[in-house]
Amino acid sequence: MILDEIKNRRSVREYQTKDVDDVLINEIIKAGQFAPTAMNNRAVEFVVIRKQETKDKIFKICGQEFIKKAPVLIIPATDTSKTNCPVRDLSVASENMFLQATSLGLGTVWKNVSIPSQKEELKKLLGIPNRFKIVNIIPVGYPESESPPHTKQDFSKDKIHWNEW
Amino acid sequence: MILDEIKNRRSVREYQTKDVDDVLINEIIKAGQFAPTAMNNRAVEFVVIRKQETKDKIFKICGQEFIKKAPVLIIPATDTSKTNCPVRDLSVASENMFLQATSLGLGTVWKNVSIPSQKEELKKLLGIPNRFKIVNIIPVGYPESESPPHTKQDFSKDKIHWNEW
Repeated sequence: MILDEIKNRRSVREYQTKDVDDVLINEIIKAGQFAPTAMNNRAVEFVVIRKQETKDKIFKICGQEFIKKAPVLIIPATDTSKTNCPVRDLSVASENMFLQATSLGLGTVWKNVSIPSQKEELKKLLGIPNRFKIVNIIPVGYPESESPPHTKQDFSKDKIHWNEW
Repeated sequence: MILDEIKNRRSVREYQTKDVDDVLINEIIKAGQFAPTAMNNRAVEFVVIRKQETKDKIFKICGQEFIKKAPVLIIPATDTSKTNCPVRDLSVASENMFLQATSLGLGTVWKNVSIPSQKEELKKLLGIPNRFKIVNIIPVGYPESESPPHTKQDFSKDKIHWNEW
């Protein structure tokens, strides 16, 4: 009964060089915009990076080969003057984007950006206003190889507590 | 091209009294467990509340009529000794649960629990160990009424920045 996209979404770290059409990138971001936000603030915006030069600069800041190689990077950012739950808003938007990408045959991964100096450098590089918060980079591309879907081995019934812990 | 569940997921705050089978609750939690976690820590656990007495006590702590009325409440909790991104892990798990519930014809909403004293009271009531973090309560039930799906009106192209802000 589990949604195929939830079962099939896996972290993809190797991408084909094949380009990803803007139409698909738009659909992925649309899915991010359809995610709930705290008090319906709708303050999440998205930077889409295709320029190799910019990807190379981001790689220098954050590392990880796939940053240079993925055809597209998406960085969600939210306006902290409009939400008191920025990490939550960015996270649920990201999950929608992962699942939408999966349904389009594309791979993604949550590349964490947690070091404050890296966040600052990235925001400066991309011109993201200071009041916006970022937490991750989402590379998007066709997966180099197929990953097995989640199975019941990934489900632990002993993590469910009925009525109390 | 947008996934139906992403389009159809809306915040539901009024539920029918009709019960929700444990089989469905299990599927919703499975979807939560199939969400990515930081460094694949898999530390998210779930408290499922059906007991009216407990729901009434939670209502006294957090308010909101739907807390008393929804047939089931699910509270995700994660072990902060195993993850350095607890809000992110709980948020992406919640979004998977929202979408899975949608695909099963069920409604949910993110009921935020942000006040520290409320978190403490809830954890004490339910016996959730101190090192676990909670951020929300997810009521689950059949929606009292149908909500319209997201449409292109909910999509702002001007929130997409190509290559730089």
